Amino acid sequence: MIFQHENSFEVKEKIKKSLVAILPIGAVEAHGPHLPLGTDNLLAERLAERVAQRTGAFILPTLPYGQVWSLKNFPGSINISNESLISFIYDMGVSLYEQGFRVFAMISGHLGNSVAMKEAARKLYADYPDYQIQYLFYPGVGKVTEEVREAKSAHSSYFHACEIETSYMLYLAEEYVDMSKALAEDPQIPMSADITPTPWEEFTSTAVLGNATLATKDKGEKIIEIAIENMIKLIEGARDGIKKAE
Amino acid sequence: MIFQHENSFEVKEKIKKSLVAILPIGAVEAHGPHLPLGTDNLLAERLAERVAQRTGAFILPTLPYGQVWSLKNFPGSINISNESLISFIYDMGVSLYEQGFRVFAMISGHLGNSVAMKEAARKLYADYPDYQIQYLFYPGVGKVTEEVREAKSAHSSYFHACEIETSYMLYLAEEYVDMSKALAEDPQIPMSADITPTPWEEFTSTAVLGNATLATKDKGEKIIEIAIENMIKLIEGARDGIKKAE
Amino acid sequence: MIFQHENSFEVKEKIKKSLVAILPIGAVEAHGPHLPLGTDNLLAERLAERVAQRTGAFILPTLPYGQVWSLKNFPGSINISNESLISFIYDMGVSLYEQGFRVFAMISGHLGNSVAMKEAARKLYADYPDYQIQYLFYPGVGKVTEEVREAKSAHSSYFHACEIETSYMLYLAEEYVDMSKALAEDPQIPMSADITPTPWEEFTSTAVLGNATLATKDKGEKIIEIAIENMIKLIEGARDGIKKAE
Amino acid sequence: MIFQHENSFEVKEKIKKSLVAILPIGAVEAHGPHLPLGTDNLLAERLAERVAQRTGAFILPTLPYGQVWSLKNFPGSINISNESLISFIYDMGVSLYEQGFRVFAMISGHLGNSVAMKEAARKLYADYPDYQIQYLFYPGVGKVTEEVREAKSAHSSYFHACEIETSYMLYLAEEYVDMSKALAEDPQIPMSADITPTPWEEFTSTAVLGNATLATKDKGEKIIEIAIENMIKLIEGARDGIKKAE
Amino acid sequence: MIFQHENSFEVKEKIKKSLVAILPIGAVEAHGPHLPLGTDNLLAERLAERVAQRTGAFILPTLPYGQVWSLKNFPGSINISNESLISFIYDMGVSLYEQGFRVFAMISGHLGNSVAMKEAARKLYADYPDYQIQYLFYPGVGKVTEEVREAKSAHSSYFHACEIETSYMLYLAEEYVDMSKALAEDPQIPMSADITPTPWEEFTSTAVLGNATLATKDKGEKIIEIAIENMIKLIEGARDGIKKAE
Amino acid sequence: MIFQHENSFEVKEKIKKSLVAILPIGAVEAHGPHLPLGTDNLLAERLAERVAQRTGAFILPTLPYGQVWSLKNFPGSINISNESLISFIYDMGVSLYEQGFRVFAMISGHLGNSVAMKEAARKLYADYPDYQIQYLFYPGVGKVTEEVREAKSAHSSYFHACEIETSYMLYLAEEYVDMSKALAEDPQIPMSADITPTPWEEFTSTAVLGNATLATKDKGEKIIEIAIENMIKLIEGARDGIKKAE
Repeated sequence: MIFQHENSFEVKEKIKKSLVAILPIGAVEAHGPHLPLGTDNLLAERLAERVAQRTGAFILPTLPYGQVWSLKNFPGSINISNESLISFIYDMGVSLYEQGFRVFAMISGHLGNSVAMKEAARKLYADYPDYQIQYLFYPGVGKVTEEVREAKSAHSSYFHACEIETSYMLYLAEEYVDMSKALAEDPQIPMSADITPTPWEEFTSTAVLGNATLATKDKGEKIIEIAIENMIKLIEGARDGIKKAE
Repeated sequence: MIFQHENSFEVKEKIKKSLVAILPIGAVEAHGPHLPLGTDNLLAERLAERVAQRTGAFILPTLPYGQVWSLKNFPGSINISNESLISFIYDMGVSLYEQGFRVFAMISGHLGNSVAMKEAARKLYADYPDYQIQYLFYPGVGKVTEEVREAKSAHSSYFHACEIETSYMLYLAEEYVDMSKALAEDPQIPMSADITPTPWEEFTSTAVLGNATLATKDKGEKIIEIAIENMIKLIEGARDGIKKAE
Repeated sequence: MIFQHENSFEVKEKIKKSLVAILPIGAVEAHGPHLPLGTDNLLAERLAERVAQRTGAFILPTLPYGQVWSLKNFPGSINISNESLISFIYDMGVSLYEQGFRVFAMISGHLGNSVAMKEAARKLYADYPDYQIQYLFYPGVGKVTEEVREAKSAHSSYFHACEIETSYMLYLAEEYVDMSKALAEDPQIPMSADITPTPWEEFTSTAVLGNATLATKDKGEKIIEIAIENMIKLIEGARDGIKKAE
Repeated sequence: MIFQHENSFEVKEKIKKSLVAILPIGAVEAHGPHLPLGTDNLLAERLAERVAQRTGAFILPTLPYGQVWSLKNFPGSINISNESLISFIYDMGVSLYEQGFRVFAMISGHLGNSVAMKEAARKLYADYPDYQIQYLFYPGVGKVTEEVREAKSAHSSYFHACEIETSYMLYLAEEYVDMSKALAEDPQIPMSADITPTPWEEFTSTAVLGNATLATKDKGEKIIEIAIENMIKLIEGARDGIKKAE
Repeated sequence: MIFQHENSFEVKEKIKKSLVAILPIGAVEAHGPHLPLGTDNLLAERLAERVAQRTGAFILPTLPYGQVWSLKNFPGSINISNESLISFIYDMGVSLYEQGFRVFAMISGHLGNSVAMKEAARKLYADYPDYQIQYLFYPGVGKVTEEVREAKSAHSSYFHACEIETSYMLYLAEEYVDMSKALAEDPQIPMSADITPTPWEEFTSTAVLGNATLATKDKGEKIIEIAIENMIKLIEGARDGIKKAE
Repeated sequence: MIFQHENSFEVKEKIKKSLVAILPIGAVEAHGPHLPLGTDNLLAERLAERVAQRTGAFILPTLPYGQVWSLKNFPGSINISNESLISFIYDMGVSLYEQGFRVFAMISGHLGNSVAMKEAARKLYADYPDYQIQYLFYPGVGKVTEEVREAKSAHSSYFHACEIETSYMLYLAEEYVDMSKALAEDPQIPMSADITPTPWEEFTSTAVLGNATLATKDKGEKIIEIAIENMIKLIEGARDGIKKAE
């Protein structure tokens, strides 16, 4: 169900049957020496494949650029403003609705896209009240992450290139990880970072927010499998709601 | 030189040396029964790979959505407005410049992106006069196309899913073409289509603007190889200009 | 140090000395039967007064309207879009900088303003790198809140008109609370509310997200005093940083 | 009828009965040594209270920032662009309409807000033709002002911190006036100030456009009472029109 | 000195010498049965010619569309929004500055353009502080108009297709006036028209706001000649200021 | 049928009968020593007159400013951004539709306006599907131009101040041409000019792209007459379509 491999003669019927479009959305962003710049794209894509297979959803081509304000001054990062990202996603959402989709599920590999995805979703919802627009970023993994984690988290709400994200990569895209280069960092994120614009170069030179050497495939599996289950439930719940309403 | 596979510890030096970023940019759009919706993305990507290999440029992840106004009502098309596309490309261009790139070459597989690419390029050029921003859509192939073509063209300035574009696909991405479904169409495009908004459903129900059955890998090769040579010359010319100016 | 009570002949010197402007920012929004529509404004103002007194900051007039998307369909709510709010705050920030302020601290009584405040702050920071712009919403109270709370929280990241917010009001603006009308609700917020646009009328008819009857002045005091201490530290830290840099 | 002191359980019925929302809108702006920066806010609020009492209208929280281009370089001024102000007021107007209000009366204490108020009003009117949006700035006081005034006016269409405005303050907010500091100025406003952008520092260093020492409470009363009568008539006229149309 | 009749080889030197560009700006708008839709364009052009001749300024091609909100529902009116008009004038102003002009004088034949002209002027002035941008609409004619006028004015600040404007046309563009169709109207403009959006069809069916039959060429001459003198003084004053500053 | 010479009492009926509004749209732009800056305006106007006479269309006042990015650094050019031009044309289109027109034909004398005209047309078409909006720039003259031309073209898709455009002027506006100053240039336009922002000063100092000395009135007539015939057919075709649909 790779959308761009379909052809225009057959796709209409298939959309009608599937109703669900999944957009993998990531970013190009510094992820330390052991993970590639495209880490968030790779994660989003692999998650989307897994979720699509089990829900009968279409996977759209990955939107591989996101809002990376915090790391935009690190080598390799490409930053899209929230305004541009919101407009772009909004336009996509309109087309998908007009094509017959009724669930537009964005699977994000990058926390920084959250504001834009949510804002675009609200705009689409205002215009199409019978449209389910979802912005999914590892939903419902808080508890399992705490269980799995060995090193303490560098920050209460985000993580980056650390034990956790590296474990995700080991589980989903191992071929792109070079564990021999993994670092153990202990960045001191000041309280002010939460309440004033704070580019990350102020507290890290590596972009690794934690101990990446502790990452394992198994840790990744434990968290990712729960994220996938939750995404499937949320997408199927939305599709069921749409079908019932018809 | 796949940009998103690089890591942030090494990429800075490499950018400095390469100076050139190539963005494949395509679209998701109806291409008849024999070509996939992602035809323009596949073409852009394959072209970009070839050009990058020979110029030492970095290939960025494909921007797989474009402006497809004319075909937006056909099954499978996803349309991005010019405004959104301009903003998005502009933001990318700013980041690439800040990262150290000095040639930003967009290789487009879709004519409909031309307005947005050009407008974004002009905005970037106004802000960064020492920046070379290129919008490349099969440059310099007019003559060879006329030589190669067997069927007459349906329109003097665009082509779609026809002998020509199908030949491109046979040469660059044969595995996605199903020639058994190829159609021979002879759409009568009214003169008014050039001077008033005219969705293509007014003159075609298949989105095939010509005789796709005449497509061959060989025809594709003849045109594409010239396009590639021209793109290489243009990119190297730009890079040489930048280096001389330093 | 009420800014609007100053006069233009004397204020310039005082700004130079103080450097800090505090903007109370709230919202007009449904808060159940026992709290007024202006709850978030009252909280922001009272907090600001306390913080200003101890930091020598100026208090600006309250910006009494905010982004209340989630509750906008409840009686009495007045909703400002993120776009409008961002522009407005940005303009204010520019003027305050030009007037000589170097710390612009927004004390928010309403979580829904967070996106706009942060986005405006980033824009201001991009234009004025030596400017400290803060968006403060009860910073650092996570731990004490968990200790104080008797009822479990209806949601992991927001609270509304409940034990917690009502306690804030009892401590800071008791005269506007009518505890005789306080409700004990146990709304079941679906998991999907975090990942798809979900107006709150889908899971509550009262806008009270918890047990407001458990609210006490004492609970409010415990949390609020810590919030105030943290705000003071953050503001003084920012001002010290500015002074050192000069 | 202070809107933000209402609660969401009772306000719906009251809106239905009242139909009228009054927004006091002012500015933070230099007003010489004898008047506070918040003069326009204080005037707007006091006027609004008086008008609301007699019309049964709701008073919204004051919007305390306005467009003060002309004086933005004077100490203490905070300037909002017309674009931002228009968007903000427009959003408010939409919410008020959706809440059931049918007359949205802005009582302005600051002439500089006129363009934004009028433009926002036209946009709202275009979207909601049965909505009465009013922008009120001392309506119908031309004649009485000429009678009352002792000093000649510095300008034919505006006044500032002078005999007139100081008299308003003496009548409505005497506690904020320090007559011992009142100045008598005779600024020569060049003809060009009406036809080319002219920051006021070009013709005044005090921001006092006239003889503030001539101000009296009695003069203020004479003008203000007429303004209030006129505002009441205009608001009641609008409400009567709405009711008749129902 | 008709700008568009110049050629690019000679114009640079001439601009340097003249420094002043005059833009006639009008509107297409209903003006009753005796005046053409283009009245405001004709007046602006004729005024501009006279002023240009005596100041050595260049006359730019007329911008013949303006903001005609109030009369936009009358037959023949073409309305441009303030936003569009501001952007357009701003762009023009930038180009004129870059071309070497230092005084950009807009001579308007239409009051409705005033907001856009002023706003665009302020934006240009913010970007180019040594640029004189003027918005001229019959400056300084208040007194003479009162002396000349026989019928009382329908409104204190605007006039339309009446004794006054028809007299202007008789003096400046008599060939377009058909006095045999001139009407004498006495529209009762309600007080509310000044404080709420009020399309003019609410108080007039002819768009003639007064007694057009009283118009004479002589009345027109008396007012227009003073307007012209004032415009010359203002333009020459601005140019002298620029030259002195160099 | 000069629109601005009509009056509002009679125009409504005439619009109903004509249905077609023609907007001449040009530019102020460098055209070498032998042609005036207003060449594109003069051509647009003269063409419009001819087409209007034969179709019973109304001619609107010329919009005399356009997008001249490529030549904006040449003496005398006045550049309007695409954004501003799109908004302006869009607003006009809305008003014309509301006035009763159903064919809005822009006759352009300047290629640089094409993007803005097309984009505005698409926006209008989206909002008013029964509206025919045309952007006409010498339609259907490719073949005759090749026959008529003596010198080879400097570029495959544009021409400027050369044999061709000068011939147009000799046929349509001879009084503004000074053939004694005509130049014969042979600019080498680099291939890169088509794919990267390239201000024309990079390849010409005169703005004459060819041999203007070869221009003749007769050549102009041959091409122009065909352009006019085509425009008439296109406009009448559109009007017939509208009438049939009613």
